Amino acid sequence: MRQFVVIGHDAPTTPEFSLDDLAGAAGRLDLLCRCVTSAFFLSHAIREDVRVHLVLADEYTVTFDGSTLRRLNPDERSTAALVRRALDEREEAIGHIPVETSPGVSLTRRGFEATLDDVARDGTVVQLHEGGDAVVDVDPPTDPVFVLSDHHDFGTDETAHIEAHAEQRLSLGPKPLHADHAITVAHNYLDTDGFERY
Amino acid sequence: MRQFVVIGHDAPTTPEFSLDDLAGAAGRLDLLCRCVTSAFFLSHAIREDVRVHLVLADEYTVTFDGSTLRRLNPDERSTAALVRRALDEREEAIGHIPVETSPGVSLTRRGFEATLDDVARDGTVVQLHEGGDAVVDVDPPTDPVFVLSDHHDFGTDETAHIEAHAEQRLSLGPKPLHADHAITVAHNYLDTDGFERY
Repeated sequence: MRQFVVIGHDAPTTPEFSLDDLAGAAGRLDLLCRCVTSAFFLSHAIREDVRVHLVLADEYTVTFDGSTLRRLNPDERSTAALVRRALDEREEAIGHIPVETSPGVSLTRRGFEATLDDVARDGTVVQLHEGGDAVVDVDPPTDPVFVLSDHHDFGTDETAHIEAHAEQRLSLGPKPLHADHAITVAHNYLDTDGFERY
Repeated sequence: MRQFVVIGHDAPTTPEFSLDDLAGAAGRLDLLCRCVTSAFFLSHAIREDVRVHLVLADEYTVTFDGSTLRRLNPDERSTAALVRRALDEREEAIGHIPVETSPGVSLTRRGFEATLDDVARDGTVVQLHEGGDAVVDVDPPTDPVFVLSDHHDFGTDETAHIEAHAEQRLSLGPKPLHADHAITVAHNYLDTDGFERY
């Protein structure tokens, strides 16, 4: 299982946003949607052994589970529609009990810390950091959990919480990447472990 | 210079498409737009030494040049608007002479073969192929030109034309990727050449 927790600091917490302005009024939901696409799509298949957790403004978390996911398309707009649909049922999300809002998509009323606490139980939390070990030099962790941020840097409290859980500190390369591109590179790193030629 | 030629088999050749249905009526323009984003965006910068050539239905080519590019945003919709604006001026595109339609974006009336013939003069054409040498084992080429396709496989004639130009045959990893994700992995491969730790 590979998991990605993505913090959307400015993301919407109600469904009253337009699909026509994801990068503006919807608080960079475009980027969060590309993270979902990067996490799940292969050329002609979905990666089933993946979960993505989008943390919306530290209030709700929308989780996509590849093993049961249906109706996911690669474009930003249709993914944003799944997030909007999840937020339609926010009144049903009580405490940490997930509400499935479409096949393989569920909503919980949890902020970042509670989400990471839960996810960390099932995997090895990896802190991506420019000063970390280069992935080319490190064997991939088992059941890795990568934590990423939108267009904002992690806040001080967020970083402290990641460091409290992190078992590894890795760098994906010498250039700072958008979160969705980091997910693609992380997958490639894990895919190519032991890959020489095939 | 790194260049990416992306074939959009079903892409529009007139500006009469809706920005609300890029994945449907606009012939998977969403994917081509994500290719542009993957090619240019770093976390807080644009890669200036990059060019992307979107081949639209073998009739027009829209070229994005990182050295002069302005007004590019990472979301699909705004990139699609730049493509639509380029097609607005298609009557001005005569022969292979480019028309600049917004800063760093130009349109030519060229199909895939003519575009690749021109681009190949400035670089080393790389064929991405599942049977190619694993990139982890190969030193990066100078001024690489990567050729990618949308959701369709390359046609027989397209493959023959790529092979006629290709100086290297590489595989980015064991999993077949969407074109935009392949661009991200290719950049990472080139970025990390000689990268051990920094």
